[in-house]
Amino acid sequence: VKSKKEYNLREALCWLLPIVIGILMGFTAFVVDIGIEWLVTFRYERTKSEIRSGGDGVALPLFTFVSVSALFTCVAGGLVAFVEPLAAGSGIPEVKTYLNGVRMKNLLHVKTLVAKLCGIMFSIGAGLIAGKEGPFVHGGAIVGSGVSAMASKALGWKLKGKYANLFRNDVDHREFTAIGTAAGVATAFGAPIGGALFTIEEGCSFYSTFVFWRCFIATCSGVLTLHGLVEARHTMFDVSLAKLGNHRDFGLYSDGDANYGATFWYYVWEFPVFVLVGILGGLMGALFIHLNVKITMWRRRHIPVSNKMRRFYEVVAIAVLTSIILFSFARSSPCRALPADVAVEEKFNEEEADLSGEDAVSEGEHRYFPQLWCEEGKYSVYGQLLMVPLSEALRMIVHLGETVDCEGTGCQAEIFPSASLFLFLVVVYLLMTLTYGVSAPTGLFVPSLAVGAAMGHLVGQILQSSVGVDKITINMHTYSILGAAASLGGATRMTLSIAVLVMETTGAMQLIVPIMLVIFVSKIVGDFFNEGIYDTHIHIRGAPLLEESGLSSSHRMITEKVTIGDVAKKELVVLPSRIQLRSLVEVLKNCSHNSFPIVNGAEMSKMVIEGSISRTILMKMLEHRLGLYNDRGAAAVEGEAERATTGAHEDLKDAYTLPLDQRRRRHIQSQLEPRIDGDPLSLELLEFELNQQGYLESHVFVDMTSFMQQNPFVLSPETSLSRAYHLFRTMGLRYLLVGHAQPVVSGIITRKDLTEEHIKISIGKKVRRRLRQRD
Amino acid sequence: VKSKKEYNLREALCWLLPIVIGILMGFTAFVVDIGIEWLVTFRYERTKSEIRSGGDGVALPLFTFVSVSALFTCVAGGLVAFVEPLAAGSGIPEVKTYLNGVRMKNLLHVKTLVAKLCGIMFSIGAGLIAGKEGPFVHGGAIVGSGVSAMASKALGWKLKGKYANLFRNDVDHREFTAIGTAAGVATAFGAPIGGALFTIEEGCSFYSTFVFWRCFIATCSGVLTLHGLVEARHTMFDVSLAKLGNHRDFGLYSDGDANYGATFWYYVWEFPVFVLVGILGGLMGALFIHLNVKITMWRRRHIPVSNKMRRFYEVVAIAVLTSIILFSFARSSPCRALPADVAVEEKFNEEEADLSGEDAVSEGEHRYFPQLWCEEGKYSVYGQLLMVPLSEALRMIVHLGETVDCEGTGCQAEIFPSASLFLFLVVVYLLMTLTYGVSAPTGLFVPSLAVGAAMGHLVGQILQSSVGVDKITINMHTYSILGAAASLGGATRMTLSIAVLVMETTGAMQLIVPIMLVIFVSKIVGDFFNEGIYDTHIHIRGAPLLEESGLSSSHRMITEKVTIGDVAKKELVVLPSRIQLRSLVEVLKNCSHNSFPIVNGAEMSKMVIEGSISRTILMKMLEHRLGLYNDRGAAAVEGEAERATTGAHEDLKDAYTLPLDQRRRRHIQSQLEPRIDGDPLSLELLEFELNQQGYLESHVFVDMTSFMQQNPFVLSPETSLSRAYHLFRTMGLRYLLVGHAQPVVSGIITRKDLTEEHIKISIGKKVRRRLRQRD
Repeated sequence: VKSKKEYNLREALCWLLPIVIGILMGFTAFVVDIGIEWLVTFRYERTKSEIRSGGDGVALPLFTFVSVSALFTCVAGGLVAFVEPLAAGSGIPEVKTYLNGVRMKNLLHVKTLVAKLCGIMFSIGAGLIAGKEGPFVHGGAIVGSGVSAMASKALGWKLKGKYANLFRNDVDHREFTAIGTAAGVATAFGAPIGGALFTIEEGCSFYSTFVFWRCFIATCSGVLTLHGLVEARHTMFDVSLAKLGNHRDFGLYSDGDANYGATFWYYVWEFPVFVLVGILGGLMGALFIHLNVKITMWRRRHIPVSNKMRRFYEVVAIAVLTSIILFSFARSSPCRALPADVAVEEKFNEEEADLSGEDAVSEGEHRYFPQLWCEEGKYSVYGQLLMVPLSEALRMIVHLGETVDCEGTGCQAEIFPSASLFLFLVVVYLLMTLTYGVSAPTGLFVPSLAVGAAMGHLVGQILQSSVGVDKITINMHTYSILGAAASLGGATRMTLSIAVLVMETTGAMQLIVPIMLVIFVSKIVGDFFNEGIYDTHIHIRGAPLLEESGLSSSHRMITEKVTIGDVAKKELVVLPSRIQLRSLVEVLKNCSHNSFPIVNGAEMSKMVIEGSISRTILMKMLEHRLGLYNDRGAAAVEGEAERATTGAHEDLKDAYTLPLDQRRRRHIQSQLEPRIDGDPLSLELLEFELNQQGYLESHVFVDMTSFMQQNPFVLSPETSLSRAYHLFRTMGLRYLLVGHAQPVVSGIITRKDLTEEHIKISIGKKVRRRLRQRD
Repeated sequence: VKSKKEYNLREALCWLLPIVIGILMGFTAFVVDIGIEWLVTFRYERTKSEIRSGGDGVALPLFTFVSVSALFTCVAGGLVAFVEPLAAGSGIPEVKTYLNGVRMKNLLHVKTLVAKLCGIMFSIGAGLIAGKEGPFVHGGAIVGSGVSAMASKALGWKLKGKYANLFRNDVDHREFTAIGTAAGVATAFGAPIGGALFTIEEGCSFYSTFVFWRCFIATCSGVLTLHGLVEARHTMFDVSLAKLGNHRDFGLYSDGDANYGATFWYYVWEFPVFVLVGILGGLMGALFIHLNVKITMWRRRHIPVSNKMRRFYEVVAIAVLTSIILFSFARSSPCRALPADVAVEEKFNEEEADLSGEDAVSEGEHRYFPQLWCEEGKYSVYGQLLMVPLSEALRMIVHLGETVDCEGTGCQAEIFPSASLFLFLVVVYLLMTLTYGVSAPTGLFVPSLAVGAAMGHLVGQILQSSVGVDKITINMHTYSILGAAASLGGATRMTLSIAVLVMETTGAMQLIVPIMLVIFVSKIVGDFFNEGIYDTHIHIRGAPLLEESGLSSSHRMITEKVTIGDVAKKELVVLPSRIQLRSLVEVLKNCSHNSFPIVNGAEMSKMVIEGSISRTILMKMLEHRLGLYNDRGAAAVEGEAERATTGAHEDLKDAYTLPLDQRRRRHIQSQLEPRIDGDPLSLELLEFELNQQGYLESHVFVDMTSFMQQNPFVLSPETSLSRAYHLFRTMGLRYLLVGHAQPVVSGIITRKDLTEEHIKISIGKKVRRRLRQRD
């Protein structure tokens, strides 16, 4: 029973906690970014300086490049293999599954957070084909979950007190996890709108403007914190000078330098070409998923999750392979004279350098045109894209040349030779396919975007050369961005959120309509072949995901034509509301169901439903000896009520309780080692305890009446599956009972009856009495 | 019973129709924009040329200014008063109510569309303090509704055939209406993301990514069509040169000229000032709503909707008043020397001129600095803001000076004298409060934004003068945009969607975080005093709106503590499944309920529920003589089945029917004139017909078994109101039955059972049989 004060506190925290989540994620992102910057710079600059000092030698630079990569990967892979296996991959499929209503152990532990975020620093530092965005989604989910619970199992910390369990129920917990996800995406990309939309599109199955709005507050405070910190670091903490708002995560120049307004344009007649880009993106995505599934299947057989050493060796091997391949191509690269307008490039913005992780540009070297083994005044064509971090390559493909006025001269078409782009496209695409799924934190967004940008740029170049360079200027930046969007769309099959993410991170607000078009086309093409990469991986794992947007026409037809009576399991394990403790423990031991319908004891055979109770609550009842009584109807042992920590039931103090002193419990626990501390009491321990205390004798009963959920959803067997599907999604249900209702109707309620005014006016007295009664 | 082909067709149309809606809205917006441009230019240029020719004279220009305004208002007001009263105002409250599940007659008629859109052209042309955005929302809703129904009552057109009624059910109709709304907002603002978000935030109570995605397709195709047409018009239909993507609806310069990236910036320490702007916006909004409610109440008493002439006179009077006030202030304006850098302003972009409706700038006059009664080289300070269309004033306050590099010089602070801004703020604010609610189409967005922009600009100027002009440059554009956002937020209490709308229409992508902040603050401040203007007007009308975001803490507490048993009406009108036709007609006549529970005939007193049937379907049954039989159990008259036009029941052909030839019906109709043609058959006419045909005799019965909705939602009286509330919103229910269920449970269904794979694998045979059976 909640008091008015509690409602108001809840209300306030609903808005304050998202800000806390955002700020925490902003700090986290700042630290991770600095870590990545440091590791990346270390590896690339080390190698470059070896090259510059060693003249034509290959051995030493290669050794540096590969060994640093292997070393960093050992950290990343080790964290996953030996610390927390759930830190592998992007984490998006897992978080998506969780938000859809399926539980997963350890997914939201602090240990996973640390392993994931440290891991991603070293993954990217090692030059694996990976991005930080996926891991940030997972990290955000963990932060959101921890903040809402105001507790952490791994840290052994838990807020106590009357109001500590305000948000410790399922629904709130999932909402805050979703909000954390949004903050994670937003801080990874520096994209507040995209982050909120990502969560809505991919995460929540139960949408409400209330959640949306809180997501947005979290993303805004996150991005503001991150940019504020970056800016403060740059201006040496002279806040009066720190100008905010001109960061673009995938921008190459600051907003002040690159006039995005003048940079992106397109013509009406280019739309068919955009469709082509969309088709190519869809095909690339579908092929990537197809190949990746094959590799995943092979990996499952030969490098199973249980075999930690093999998993570890695999990821190191892939890192070494990646390094050798990239290095070899860069080494065999042709040299090319620096573009005439490279001077313009020199005035790059310091702030951007901070963000991109290439702070320490060696003196005398042109920032975006690495000399490597080339002579003075020339640059390495392949090295320009292959010997830089992946996100830097992406930025260059999309934005390089933005500060040069190329209209009419066609100079932008010349910045990247087609051969270099094509090589980048093929090499990174294949490595990305191989890498996604290894035992290290790896995000998919940046690789997919980079590959797509190269594809788009190539299409643009082909188009430019076919219409003629001097006639009309095609905008390469437009094509790179569209290609990136199409490729990401083809791989993830997300829609609105990636459109906005791409727009926000590149500053290409003009292109929102063509971006939408290519993503739409690429989704249609991709869906023709297979599901998105995340859903595919979810299905490989066999999690029951109910996705509305994923409802295919055939699935929809089935759900509309089949009734739930056809699908429902008839083998129910039901409990009477009063049951022998011994029998209850037996049921819990022998049946793994998560929830039990409670039927009217008198008419057990007819199974008239009274309520339902979840396994968690039953365990809590047993742990705290709640609701026990002996067969003479009185409580088995009188004692002071102990308040259970679950937020689901507030009537606990009315129930009977049977305390067990803590010293005794610790003694019993020590007998039952090894078990992880802080975990909920295991059933074995409970049974042992209860047995020791003699509660398993036949006269001890449990009364679940005041603990069960009354009025569970019961649908008639004739209800269509589609209606059940909708209920599951929107109400966040875990199960539904099926039964012939034939209810005796006693009244009707319309929308009007639910408005506040109506309740207050028409039944004001009753409400007041009711509120008083229960307060 | 739907076939596979029908499902596929449905699927395809679900995606194609939004594109159609978008394109239609794009064309509509293009035509309306041209209309507004023409009318606005006519009035202002006429007046200006009178001034220039008449020297110091006031009478002739004043006469022109006022009389043209009065003339145009006569058209706008006349359309509302004498053609369609629902065309008044913005239409957003009405559409919102409709989308929330409350029906409203004539709201979605073509007649309303024409009256609204023609009306808004003349409202704006007349210089009323109004914007076109609200009416476009309403217009979009009508287009969406019409496209989905593939019919129009007013046009007397209706698609016939097997597939014509695919979307003629309630849910689809509402979804398409929502999509139309999104397209309306998007084309009015040129903001595809904002349009989609607007609908999600304000319109839909039942959200799904499916709808969201289709909204976005509609908004994108709408904006693309509109900008394509504008561009085509500008380039004289030489499409190869038509560059797209650099339009901003509230931009003053094209994206190519104004480097938005360099234009907007802010410092960390400005955040407290932003909070102040938010507070001011909230206060302004709350006061506006408070005053407007007073005026609306007064208006209801003295100028009721029924009194058409008074309503008409009122709006003309307000237009005359507005004109005289604006003119007088402009006339008494001081003169001021043109700014030194005005030359820069000269290179305004032709495209922008097209969009803004000021094409015909007289030779020798500076575009943004009207000379009016001033001598050469000077401009009229008040006239600059008061003698231009409202949207142009908004654009100037926000953007003027964007092409001039003012950093360090503080020149931008000097563009508008504070006096002029303050005057504009007060005058437009008061006129806006007076105007909203008159009998003419008027949108609120533009006036509210304009007033807010002036407020923000003033705050910025005060801040600049207090920190010192030479020390640090405050960005006035930033303040104007934040002020505009705060003001709109304070008036409408919308959040995310207006943040994105403001961002998209001004190009201020950098400012998304501060925009969010001010809107959040302004909402909190405003909510402290009253509800948003739309909700206020909805409540004045007494419509039962169930809004999730509007759930206050107290309301939430009530809904959680009160059960539906407390609220439900116990006086039910129930029907048995078989009933005498005569009795049914009596019930329909004497009881205005929209839906009737059907109870088991044998146990009428116990009221065991069998299903429910809506009034609409009952009327359709009677109209088409479906389900009639005589008391000996056979069909009353055998005849060929006539397919009813409602999409809700597809079993009609199995039912008995009793045809009535059309000639005879027309004869009966002519006897019952006057009634509006094309409307559904009225109950009186039906009774008359049935009586004439002798069906009201005692032996004719109606069998509703195959027409009723089986398994209506029945909740136990102990269910909390909050659960019912959630069900009403997410399932789009109109009513819920209350009853003691005590169902006999026969099975359980979990999430996993609903996945496509599971259904196919576990009960494949059954599904196939079922699909065959019903195909």
